[in-house]
Amino acid sequence: MTPTQRTLQLCDHIATFTDIPGQIHRLFLTPATRRLHTYLTQEMRQAGLQVRTDALGNLRATLPCPNPQAPTLLIGSHIDTVPNAGRYDGILGVALPLALIPTLPPLPYHLELIAFSEEEGVRFRTPFLGSRALTNTLPSLTIEDPQGINIQQALQAFPTDPNQPATLTPNTFAFLELHIEQGPILESLNLPLGIVESIVGQTRLSLTFVGQANHAGTTPMPLRRDALTAAASFITHVETLAQGTPGLVATVGTITAAPGAPNIIPGQVTLSLDIRHPDDCTRLRTRRTLTTAARAIATQRNIEVHIRQASQQSTVLMHSTLTNLLARSAAATANPAHTMHSGAGHDAMILAESLPSTMLFLRTPHGLSHHPDESVLPEDITAAHQTLTHFLTHLDPTQIQPRTHLTST
Amino acid sequence: MTPTQRTLQLCDHIATFTDIPGQIHRLFLTPATRRLHTYLTQEMRQAGLQVRTDALGNLRATLPCPNPQAPTLLIGSHIDTVPNAGRYDGILGVALPLALIPTLPPLPYHLELIAFSEEEGVRFRTPFLGSRALTNTLPSLTIEDPQGINIQQALQAFPTDPNQPATLTPNTFAFLELHIEQGPILESLNLPLGIVESIVGQTRLSLTFVGQANHAGTTPMPLRRDALTAAASFITHVETLAQGTPGLVATVGTITAAPGAPNIIPGQVTLSLDIRHPDDCTRLRTRRTLTTAARAIATQRNIEVHIRQASQQSTVLMHSTLTNLLARSAAATANPAHTMHSGAGHDAMILAESLPSTMLFLRTPHGLSHHPDESVLPEDITAAHQTLTHFLTHLDPTQIQPRTHLTST
Repeated sequence: MTPTQRTLQLCDHIATFTDIPGQIHRLFLTPATRRLHTYLTQEMRQAGLQVRTDALGNLRATLPCPNPQAPTLLIGSHIDTVPNAGRYDGILGVALPLALIPTLPPLPYHLELIAFSEEEGVRFRTPFLGSRALTNTLPSLTIEDPQGINIQQALQAFPTDPNQPATLTPNTFAFLELHIEQGPILESLNLPLGIVESIVGQTRLSLTFVGQANHAGTTPMPLRRDALTAAASFITHVETLAQGTPGLVATVGTITAAPGAPNIIPGQVTLSLDIRHPDDCTRLRTRRTLTTAARAIATQRNIEVHIRQASQQSTVLMHSTLTNLLARSAAATANPAHTMHSGAGHDAMILAESLPSTMLFLRTPHGLSHHPDESVLPEDITAAHQTLTHFLTHLDPTQIQPRTHLTST
Repeated sequence: MTPTQRTLQLCDHIATFTDIPGQIHRLFLTPATRRLHTYLTQEMRQAGLQVRTDALGNLRATLPCPNPQAPTLLIGSHIDTVPNAGRYDGILGVALPLALIPTLPPLPYHLELIAFSEEEGVRFRTPFLGSRALTNTLPSLTIEDPQGINIQQALQAFPTDPNQPATLTPNTFAFLELHIEQGPILESLNLPLGIVESIVGQTRLSLTFVGQANHAGTTPMPLRRDALTAAASFITHVETLAQGTPGLVATVGTITAAPGAPNIIPGQVTLSLDIRHPDDCTRLRTRRTLTTAARAIATQRNIEVHIRQASQQSTVLMHSTLTNLLARSAAATANPAHTMHSGAGHDAMILAESLPSTMLFLRTPHGLSHHPDESVLPEDITAAHQTLTHFLTHLDPTQIQPRTHLTST
């Protein structure tokens, strides 16, 4: 079996571990994840790895090198899923290295493969719990899931061993994450691989327009204070601005109108606004422009608007030495690759704050992700294997300079 | 106690019958309605009325005239409420005549006061059940409420007596409904009363825009098929058209975006569209214009739109002889009144299909209705009492010509 066949076999089998039969649906610390741990532990041990589960539920498998003093390269991705997921988001970044390890020559460093327990933020509405444990940026463990179970209780029920440190292995010198692109850019360029140079910053706002609910039949148009027509005007403004600004994406993904009856003018509309751009200044300027526009629309219509910042994340640069080596490895193995930004957040974004980090993307057919039809091309997996083998065998830990703070200027 | 004081006392006491303590919330055939029937029956009998509850739960009280062969004038409104209601919508049209009856001189016809059991359409999502019983236009009684109880079962549980006919009393010659305006027009004219000449037609559509859900961070603007930006463009179009067309009101009251996450481009948006205009041709032309616009917006954005007509009601004219007498009665009692259209649907709209009908509106402060702060001015109740007394004492049943079909031309 080739490493590519083995990778696909692993992804197919991992997809069978689900909390909802008929779908791929595997949340943080659920029974399906527990069963998947048992399966992966066995497969990892057969590949010669030393396996443990840390206190936060991350599955960690080490291929030791003969020199116990050698530093450690961390590699991996997450094994939790969104609801009704595909079989590659996150998973591929664990399965692909696991399939490759038996084919590797001896390396001058320990190789630690990590399957992060939580990245999607579904169960506790808080993402990146697995990687945030390793960077000491975990939120409170009293956050509850919809059933009222908090993170601490879920860890005890799984169970995880609180004595297994959920921290970076001492002397870890870098992190590499492989992931599907989850977007259409590589496909549009007809390229198998993407070298990620940055993970773009993101501002997430919540806007609430407050007008006056009233009867749709008895309130003449000039006397209305309609929160939904104000919101519609704003949404159009967001789209127009984003279309006219290179590299900018801005999205209204949620909207609710209250009271929400066909014969009542909406008195209150709440919507989300997600703004992303590789350049933090452009993102922050867009935030200002759009909040100013929202206020102008509200004033003009004699309604109110309340704006709350839900989250904010600066652009995170990948480590240039690692990224350059990835690009050279792709070129050396004759696999064309595109240097690009990641529009989505990843565990590498969290780890990059503490550790030199980089990411390799694989083309996503039709850009389709978070969907049962999510797919990946076998020839792209082969390209990733070749690139990764070259990268791992040419990586010199002594050449990687740690940086303490990695944001764009 | 004056009839005005008595009217307000009745409305205040009726408001205490509620299914949700702390709110006015009284749905069709609930325990609160049962208790209200007991109270109203007692008050009606003390006013000299003969009371029964018909098979559909309408409370019907007759003030007989000495001549048993005399025809019957039907007067009344509904006693069910919207959730968290005010205390006058519907109720006032029962309480005001009840307060007035003891002050009336003998009339040359039977006067039947009806408290319709269902008008708001909350419990079974189907309005006008009380009046539709009287015109033989009831929908199937197998329609279920959210608890899975159907209308037939709810009638049996109340209980109503299936042997009490829920039909028009034989030889009924006309219907009069008093109701709060539920809009701002009379207040803006500084007038206490409105004479309703028509109840405007209404078209209700459901539109679903279907694009492609996708990742908000990884999908560049030019590659998006965003159902929500399409919907926003449509909503703006609706507002602009309505603002530019005299007498037209058009409202998007509900909107849902799926999948509905801040970081996912909406792939599907469903919204309601409510179109009303006194002239049916203008309303139907507006319907065409807006559905054409929706299709054009969808085509331009490479998405689909599905349009379903949820309901459609032509403009219903009130009976001109009755309406003219109402206007003369207001003038004769020195109460200024405005002849107007009703933008809202009422039981009179249903009965007008079978019976000469008219409506008298009372000013609604701030146009505020379907809200706990709904109110009515005592001096406007007095104006209505004076007008109604003149109307009832000058109404000649022999002068009212039945019309079989009453829609605008």
